[in-house]
Amino acid sequence: MIPAKGYAAHDATSLLGPFNFERREVGEHDVLIDIQYCGVCHSDIHQVRNEWGGSIYPMVPGHEIVGRISKVGSKVTKFKVGDLGGVGCFVDSCRTCHSCQEGLEQYCEVHNVGTYNSLERDKKTPTYGGYSSQIVVDENYTLKVSEKLDLKRVAPLLCAGITTYSPLMQWKVGKGHKVAIVGLGGLGHMAVKLAVSLGADVTVLSTSPGKEQDAKALGAHNFAVTKDPEQVKQLRNTFDFIVDTVSAPHDYNLYLGMLRRDGTMILLGVPPEPTPVAAFHLIGKRKRLVGSMIGGIQETQEMLDYCAEHNIMSDVEVIPIQKINEAYERTLKSDVRYRFVIDMASLENEVATEELRG
Amino acid sequence: MIPAKGYAAHDATSLLGPFNFERREVGEHDVLIDIQYCGVCHSDIHQVRNEWGGSIYPMVPGHEIVGRISKVGSKVTKFKVGDLGGVGCFVDSCRTCHSCQEGLEQYCEVHNVGTYNSLERDKKTPTYGGYSSQIVVDENYTLKVSEKLDLKRVAPLLCAGITTYSPLMQWKVGKGHKVAIVGLGGLGHMAVKLAVSLGADVTVLSTSPGKEQDAKALGAHNFAVTKDPEQVKQLRNTFDFIVDTVSAPHDYNLYLGMLRRDGTMILLGVPPEPTPVAAFHLIGKRKRLVGSMIGGIQETQEMLDYCAEHNIMSDVEVIPIQKINEAYERTLKSDVRYRFVIDMASLENEVATEELRG
Repeated sequence: MIPAKGYAAHDATSLLGPFNFERREVGEHDVLIDIQYCGVCHSDIHQVRNEWGGSIYPMVPGHEIVGRISKVGSKVTKFKVGDLGGVGCFVDSCRTCHSCQEGLEQYCEVHNVGTYNSLERDKKTPTYGGYSSQIVVDENYTLKVSEKLDLKRVAPLLCAGITTYSPLMQWKVGKGHKVAIVGLGGLGHMAVKLAVSLGADVTVLSTSPGKEQDAKALGAHNFAVTKDPEQVKQLRNTFDFIVDTVSAPHDYNLYLGMLRRDGTMILLGVPPEPTPVAAFHLIGKRKRLVGSMIGGIQETQEMLDYCAEHNIMSDVEVIPIQKINEAYERTLKSDVRYRFVIDMASLENEVATEELRG
Repeated sequence: MIPAKGYAAHDATSLLGPFNFERREVGEHDVLIDIQYCGVCHSDIHQVRNEWGGSIYPMVPGHEIVGRISKVGSKVTKFKVGDLGGVGCFVDSCRTCHSCQEGLEQYCEVHNVGTYNSLERDKKTPTYGGYSSQIVVDENYTLKVSEKLDLKRVAPLLCAGITTYSPLMQWKVGKGHKVAIVGLGGLGHMAVKLAVSLGADVTVLSTSPGKEQDAKALGAHNFAVTKDPEQVKQLRNTFDFIVDTVSAPHDYNLYLGMLRRDGTMILLGVPPEPTPVAAFHLIGKRKRLVGSMIGGIQETQEMLDYCAEHNIMSDVEVIPIQKINEAYERTLKSDVRYRFVIDMASLENEVATEELRG
C-alpha cells in the first residue's frame, strides 16, 4: 500500500482536517498521480455535510484532480511517468453495460465508482478523493492533460468544464443560437466561456445587477436581471437554450417562458426539493426540460483537448488546503470568482506540522 | 351570410342548448362544409366551463370536424364540391411568422385562430366550432379526408389523432422502442394505436387494473398498474418514451423513474397546477420532459393519410347533439370508449323542434 495524506471530514458536522490513509498499490492498469491541484466543487460540501444522504466517513473529497504521473503499471499504454494526468468525478464503472459500452460511463447502469464517497467495484473499499497527495487510478479512467495550459486553472475542467461542455455538445449548441446561462458560479462561468467559444450569442441571467461586469468580462454578449419583470417580459420566447446551473430553489417556469418554440432548458443543478413545472410552458411551444450529468471519459478527453486548443480555463482562486473550511463558507456565499482550487503543495507543510504534533 | 344552427354554451355554468347563428359568405379561398360528425374533446368542457379563463360566449364548441364540401370559393384549388373535408383545432393563423412558414401554424407567434372560443384575424369576429350544421373555412386550413374510412370514426383524428401523432413523429418513435402510454382516454387510445402501428413495443400504464383488457384490445403489448409499487419498481429504467395524456393532477416523477437513459416523457395534458419535477430524475440519466401541442396543417394531413393507409380510426360512441350535456358528464367520469362523436344529422330534428316552439 502507498501512504497518502489528505484532508478529510469525519462526520457531517465537523470541519475538515488532516488525515493519513493508504492508496492501493499501482496495479497493471493503474497510474499513480502526484496531485498538484484539486478544485473545490459545491457538491463536495453537499457530500461532506451529508446533505444528499448516505455519506461515507472518513471522507476525502475532491473530484477535480490534476497532477503528474509518478508511476505506471506494467500494462499501461496511455501514460508514461512524467505525463500530466487528470481525474474527474469517477474512477471506475462496470465497463460492460450499454452506457459503459457507449462511452457514457457516468450513466453506468451497474455501478459507477465515484472518485470519493463511493465504493470500489468490490462494493467494500471506500474511495478517497483529490484533497490528497496522491491517487491511484486505472489508466482508462485517467485523462490526458495538456502541458500548454495553466494547470491550476485546468483542475475545474474535470467537473465544472465537462458538466457544461457535455450538454452543449449533445444539443449541438453553436452559431446562430441564443443561449442563456443561469447562475454565474463554477459551472456558470464555464458555460459562458464554452458557449461563447462555440459561437453562440450568450446572455447571463442573474438575480443580481452587480454581476453584469463579471458576465461581460467572461465573454457574455448580454446580461439581464431576472428580478426585473420588464426585462423578463422582454426576454419571452427568446432563447434556443437555457443552461441552468443553479442548485438553490428557483422558479423553472420563469425561465421556460424565455425559451422560444422548440427551445431547451438544460438542468445541471439539483435543487433540494422537486420544482413545480407548468405543463403549459412545455406544451404551448413544444419546449424541453432536460438534464445532463458530467460526461463520459471520451467526451471529457475531448473537452480537455478542446479547451487546450481554444485556451479555455477556469477562473480560480488558489488556496492552501489549510483554508478549505473557510473556502467552503465562501463557496456557500458565492464569494469566489469562480472556483477555489487547492494547491496541494500546501499539504506537505501540513503533514510536517502534524508529524511535529504527533 | 349563411344561416347556421348549432349548440352553444351561453355562460360557464349553464347547459349547452340550441343556437342559431351565421357563417360568413364563402370567400375566394373558402370552402363551405356541411358538417356530418364532430368529436367531443375534453378541452371543449374546459372551455365551455371557462376553466382556462377568457372564454367567449356564446360558445359553439367542437374542433374535430368532418363533413362534405357543398360550396367552394372561386380561387379554391384543393377541394371541389362533394369532397370530404376536415377541420381541426384552428382555422387560421398569421401565415407569415417563422412557425407558420415552417408549417407549424399551431405555434403561430402572432395569432393562431382557434376553431372556436377564439377571434378571427380581425381580432373582433368570434369563431364558432363544429357542434353545428356548417362551417366556412379557408381551404388552406381544411384537411382532405379519405372516403375509405368510417367518417364518424375519423372525426377525433383531427384533434386526438394529430395530438398523439405529432410527437411520435417528432421523436421518431418506431421499431425497437419501448413506449408507455399514460391515460387510456381519447388521446391515450389513439396513442396506443399509432405507436403500435409504428412498430413500437407498447405498454399501457393505468391506475386501474380493469383497463388491461381494453389496453390489449387496442393493440397494446403490455399493461401495468401504477398503483402497485412492485410493478412500478420492475419498470424502472425501462421506456424510451412515455406519452402522458393525463390532464388531472398526477406525479410526473413516478413516470420519469420508468424512463431509461436518454428517455423522453412527452406531456400532452395540462394539469390545473404546476407539477413538481425532481431534477435528479432528469439529470441522473439524461432524461427529457417535453411538450407537444396538436400539429400543423401539413402534418395533420400526413396523419390523416397515414391513418387511411393503415386503417387507423378512433373508437367512438355516436350521440345525437341532444345528448351533449350528458356526454360531458360521462366524459368527466371517463365513461366513454373512447370518444363521443356527435352525429350532426340530429341537429336537423332539433331545429325543427325549435322552429315549432318558435
